[in-house]
Amino acid sequence: MIVGTEWLIEAFGCDPAKLREIDALKSVFDKAVTGLGLKVLGAPQWHKFGGEGGVTGLTMLTESHLACHTYPEYGTATFNLYCCRSRPEWDWESNLRDLVGATSVSVTRIQRGEDPNSAIRNPKSQAVGGEN
Amino acid sequence: MIVGTEWLIEAFGCDPAKLREIDALKSVFDKAVTGLGLKVLGAPQWHKFGGEGGVTGLTMLTESHLACHTYPEYGTATFNLYCCRSRPEWDWESNLRDLVGATSVSVTRIQRGEDPNSAIRNPKSQAVGGEN
Repeated sequence: MIVGTEWLIEAFGCDPAKLREIDALKSVFDKAVTGLGLKVLGAPQWHKFGGEGGVTGLTMLTESHLACHTYPEYGTATFNLYCCRSRPEWDWESNLRDLVGATSVSVTRIQRGEDPNSAIRNPKSQAVGGEN
Repeated sequence: MIVGTEWLIEAFGCDPAKLREIDALKSVFDKAVTGLGLKVLGAPQWHKFGGEGGVTGLTMLTESHLACHTYPEYGTATFNLYCCRSRPEWDWESNLRDLVGATSVSVTRIQRGEDPNSAIRNPKSQAVGGEN
């Protein structure tokens, strides 16, 4: 039984200054929430790590959650959007280009809650896009 | 550049009553945090949906985040653990069996921050374990 869809997004070549600005990342969350008609639950949490460090953001949604972690030292940001109701695809690529200066964006969609015994594409333990 | 590791965990055949108890899910988070030597940042967020609904939990970590969503109507719970520093594997299977009565557990490990142009196993858009 599929209980939700999760999008894992990696943004590369971003402007390191934007990846240290909570407001820039908040604008990504706000635009996704508005664009997809999501509903925020409670207070979003944001943390800026010290010095040249990046930002972590977590927002609870009626539909599940939205998360981001940024790595200004590599120009990389990662996002998770988990939705337990069907949502259309969002244009992460153009939004992340506009809002944090990404030069390339990868989007991976994963169905959550599949029984590992019923789908050959979801074995018990699986590494995706990894080194092993 | 791999910036972190994310574990996506699906637990099946769980006790529906446990999936409606914030305390049962908190005990999973607490045990993972202690077992893996993680550091909680700020206040963990928990929400119990009304009536027969499930629970959502989000905890910000120095190492990234921990999330869960439960679906008592299906006996299913899903967890995400995202760590930006190397951590050993945690025994999700026996812990989820003990704490929420899971009868089977699937763990998928994903490397975050890989450049989609440099790895054939991480194409620009990819559905894993899904229907399309």
